[in-house]
Amino acid sequence: MDLTEITSPSFIKKLNKNQIAELAEDIREFLIEKLSVTGGHIGPNLGVVELTIMLHRLFDSPTDKILWDVGHQAYVHKILTGRASEFDSLRQFKGLCGFPKMNESEHDVWETGHSSTSLSAAMGMAAARDVKGDTNYVIPVIGDGALTGGMALEALNHIGHKKTNMIVILNDNEMSIAPNVGALHTILGKLRTAGKYNNAKDELEYILKKIPAVGGKVAAAAERVKDSLKYLLVSGIFFEELGFTYLGPVDGHDINELERQLQYAKKMDGPVLLHVITKKGKGYSPAEEDKIGTWHGTGPYKIETGDFVKSASVAPSWSGLVAETVRTIARDDRRVVAITPAMPVGSKLESFATEFPDRFFDVGIAEQHATTMAAGLATQGMKPFLAIYSTFLQRAYDQMLHDVARQNLNVFIGIDRAGLVGADGETHQGVFDIAFLRHMPNLVIMMPKDENEGQHMVKTAIDYDGGPIAMRYPRGNGLGVKMDKTLQAIPIGSWEVLRAGDDAAILTFGTTIPMALQAAETLAAVGIHVRVINARFIKPLDNQMLDQLFATGIPIMTVEEAVLAGGFGSAVIEYAHDTGKKDIPIRRMGIPDQFIEHGNVDELLAEIGMTAGHLVDNMQTFIKEVAVEREQV
Amino acid sequence: MDLTEITSPSFIKKLNKNQIAELAEDIREFLIEKLSVTGGHIGPNLGVVELTIMLHRLFDSPTDKILWDVGHQAYVHKILTGRASEFDSLRQFKGLCGFPKMNESEHDVWETGHSSTSLSAAMGMAAARDVKGDTNYVIPVIGDGALTGGMALEALNHIGHKKTNMIVILNDNEMSIAPNVGALHTILGKLRTAGKYNNAKDELEYILKKIPAVGGKVAAAAERVKDSLKYLLVSGIFFEELGFTYLGPVDGHDINELERQLQYAKKMDGPVLLHVITKKGKGYSPAEEDKIGTWHGTGPYKIETGDFVKSASVAPSWSGLVAETVRTIARDDRRVVAITPAMPVGSKLESFATEFPDRFFDVGIAEQHATTMAAGLATQGMKPFLAIYSTFLQRAYDQMLHDVARQNLNVFIGIDRAGLVGADGETHQGVFDIAFLRHMPNLVIMMPKDENEGQHMVKTAIDYDGGPIAMRYPRGNGLGVKMDKTLQAIPIGSWEVLRAGDDAAILTFGTTIPMALQAAETLAAVGIHVRVINARFIKPLDNQMLDQLFATGIPIMTVEEAVLAGGFGSAVIEYAHDTGKKDIPIRRMGIPDQFIEHGNVDELLAEIGMTAGHLVDNMQTFIKEVAVEREQV
Repeated sequence: MDLTEITSPSFIKKLNKNQIAELAEDIREFLIEKLSVTGGHIGPNLGVVELTIMLHRLFDSPTDKILWDVGHQAYVHKILTGRASEFDSLRQFKGLCGFPKMNESEHDVWETGHSSTSLSAAMGMAAARDVKGDTNYVIPVIGDGALTGGMALEALNHIGHKKTNMIVILNDNEMSIAPNVGALHTILGKLRTAGKYNNAKDELEYILKKIPAVGGKVAAAAERVKDSLKYLLVSGIFFEELGFTYLGPVDGHDINELERQLQYAKKMDGPVLLHVITKKGKGYSPAEEDKIGTWHGTGPYKIETGDFVKSASVAPSWSGLVAETVRTIARDDRRVVAITPAMPVGSKLESFATEFPDRFFDVGIAEQHATTMAAGLATQGMKPFLAIYSTFLQRAYDQMLHDVARQNLNVFIGIDRAGLVGADGETHQGVFDIAFLRHMPNLVIMMPKDENEGQHMVKTAIDYDGGPIAMRYPRGNGLGVKMDKTLQAIPIGSWEVLRAGDDAAILTFGTTIPMALQAAETLAAVGIHVRVINARFIKPLDNQMLDQLFATGIPIMTVEEAVLAGGFGSAVIEYAHDTGKKDIPIRRMGIPDQFIEHGNVDELLAEIGMTAGHLVDNMQTFIKEVAVEREQV
Repeated sequence: MDLTEITSPSFIKKLNKNQIAELAEDIREFLIEKLSVTGGHIGPNLGVVELTIMLHRLFDSPTDKILWDVGHQAYVHKILTGRASEFDSLRQFKGLCGFPKMNESEHDVWETGHSSTSLSAAMGMAAARDVKGDTNYVIPVIGDGALTGGMALEALNHIGHKKTNMIVILNDNEMSIAPNVGALHTILGKLRTAGKYNNAKDELEYILKKIPAVGGKVAAAAERVKDSLKYLLVSGIFFEELGFTYLGPVDGHDINELERQLQYAKKMDGPVLLHVITKKGKGYSPAEEDKIGTWHGTGPYKIETGDFVKSASVAPSWSGLVAETVRTIARDDRRVVAITPAMPVGSKLESFATEFPDRFFDVGIAEQHATTMAAGLATQGMKPFLAIYSTFLQRAYDQMLHDVARQNLNVFIGIDRAGLVGADGETHQGVFDIAFLRHMPNLVIMMPKDENEGQHMVKTAIDYDGGPIAMRYPRGNGLGVKMDKTLQAIPIGSWEVLRAGDDAAILTFGTTIPMALQAAETLAAVGIHVRVINARFIKPLDNQMLDQLFATGIPIMTVEEAVLAGGFGSAVIEYAHDTGKKDIPIRRMGIPDQFIEHGNVDELLAEIGMTAGHLVDNMQTFIKEVAVEREQV
């Protein structure tokens, strides 16, 4: 069928099983084709085609609330709720979001991006329903990977205790993003195998009758034997112990079986967990055969071959550069260990893991545990490298503050994907970390101007013995600069002048340095000579250089690809005020007080006025204003 | 024995069982007496007397690592490691800390305050041991309440999977702080009861033999019956499923049984969970009989009667005022529901819970879940009141940002214990919230000057439909002001002038307002007339009032009982710079870039230069400096 003609999921209820199978086929073809051009989360979405169709067949969205945990697997849901025609703009600026968005559809009842939130949100929705006396269903769909996130486990504990009506769909594809880790994974594995015995109930009852009726202690024991059999009959004991009725496992690509089990789940009281086995990438063999997570989220690809259409970059990826430098140092320094919360591929730690399997820890989606485990390692004299995306470090704010910074432990935090990340959009922008880390005592925060400085900063971080040290680096690749052969630590808190100039100064770091240099070049052409300073240490500031700069009295512009409130620019003006230099003209450029949507990074920067052109304009206006003021005095 | 003569726990290894019992008795008497004067966490510590003695008997601290989760139950450990003589100064300024502190003793291998960190830290220590090839034991001691914290569950999942050698002591006193909630609580309850059947193994084997040997399908079923019996024999299936060997339950006050089980645990490979049943308050009847958590942590008390020595306050407690105002409004507004992460007593929500049992949710120690559940409730048009201590809101940073603020949901966050909290010390000071919340788009942050304004702010928060709104309030009691009978919402972002003056201005809010007024009074006596402004909205600022103030050009001092970096004062100077008012003299007073230790709040404020006297001095210096500068111009 023409998927772009769908306006509401209600039509699914009228289809026969053959038509449903055809619909699934059409959706698969559509996704494979569309995503080959735009890129996107192909693997997860191909895995939930039948599941999504059957959820919309068996439930009445949006009265019934379907919540997509993480949310990158909601493409099929978007198609079925009338958004197929927008897929050409998927994850593009002003286009269809890659995650559920309330303002796109009334069927998107919960927005996500970060994992493991759906059960808590569902509990809130179910509690609201019960207070109001409504009777709608609440159906969170959560992956096996997301289930290991602490807040999902907190929610299971609460929901099971309260016996709240809810149908949790456990979408078990045996992978989180990378292959799954953790004891829960083992539990699910056993359940998958055990599934085939599920019809043994009658036989077991026969056995029970054969147990001799004897008196006294033995009778009591026999009773306990009978009790224990419930563990066989009900299966899923882990979830049963938590207060859920466990159903499944069911083949997530078998529409008849899905229908039967969902019908059954609808009739039950209390919380139900329906274990659905799906295959990531189902129906597209390159994605289906992926074992390490390459096809989780991709850029454009060639459909026939499964080859990725890569933009040729000669520069190393930032993640790779950092991971490889850590690996090199780790060869001579046995104190170095690496920790990742489920991102061995994204953080390019696979080579480290292969070379040092005993010193590598993928803890699954568990940022809190990852961070405090790093703290524990540091108490024993180790040098843990915690590789974590900026946006996910938000999950470990308290662990950073209470465990790492407060105890002043030598943890090296590699803040990957710092700054705008682009297509993943507002849930994933790495723009808050400076504002949420800068007020933590004891913490050093730095960001390199290019990959060569980056490798020296890795050395700096591992050499440093004064407490925690964080290095931010962006998504994507370096600039392609020449790499020094020998690593050398950079003095903590030292900035450097990249370009001389006495009319004004730009203080910036990391990704915005090329833009600052370009703006300075443009301004030089009109006779304005701007000093450009690489403020590579965000904390501590280079007070000496700042004092010298303040002494000149020239206008200062701070530029950061991070939120303005409480950010680097704030640190500079705080320092100016604290040292009584209140009459220094300082302006700040950065991310305003709003969430930044999806789109490519250049488009987003242009949208918020963060280009070299804007910087040139702002600087000229600023310099003029200061000149006018000074004439008035 | 004289406990103050203890210098090291090694003596315990040489005691016979009678001597151990005497030691336990001595420690109990000592604690009951000392804490009757100083106050402290009496209940938890009386519960772990025998357990702590036996841990130090069976293990070699500090080579073996004993980690105290939360840490308020480490008093016995402090006594046994040579700190008995310091108990007169417990939780006092420059005195013995109420939590483990590395700088007090080499036996304090991990510092805590917040719950649920011990398993992650222990995993880090165990991983370090294994990398180094050491063989020491790692023994985290975690309560049943702390176990429901998400990060503890993340850690269980990882440790069980890795099969790391570790002995987890589950200190099960059937309460967290308030009585425990959650499915895990039910699981532990069943295990406690099941314990008495633990010797039924022989009898069960008899039963097994009676199961008929038949062929085909039934034989396979019989095999599964036998398999299932492991659930009876091993007990603790929940933990076994997670990859732990479950031992227990053992009576935590029976030293023989503790010795036997700890010896057994030491011999096992892989992670062991020893379930120890203790009685909070054991040996002191008022504490032992406590059912709601009153004796968890207390002030001074009379030993004979168990009466608390209360300082008479006519003013309502802040927690009580807020909770009761919410309750009053909830009578007419069925959208209002209340959520607490394990603090129904501390947050004074018991009356709300009694009056509106269906609209009250104690989720246990699970701040992440509490916050996102509130978000879920808000999506359905409810008005959730999330009562949470400032320090514990740190655990829900990402939930506040990603779920509440990003979706702009109407959640009312009651930030209790905001500002310095005193005796609990550096892990509990509520001084970071402004810095970590201020950069969240859509969020309103306010703090009342007194309890009358406080009740109007509660009304303001519940009336507000523009998104999330947070109200900070301090630990302790209000000022005893007259309370209006009718509640009235305060316009969002509106400040008020509390005292006129044209020589300088103080911008402050909440607890520091009395100090500002006092300083203004003192300064008036020497002819300096200071305007005092109640900056009750920390976000958004009252830009109109700021513009007017900037127009006067008078020196401005911001004062906040919160960290300076990125705080309220920063917001004011950011606004000044953003509006080109760079020549406005502004100085900031607040918490410097360091962790603030324990002590009473007045002592701590004096230590960091935050008294009315300091404010007077700072203001005079500031005014003089500005005058000198202006003369120079």
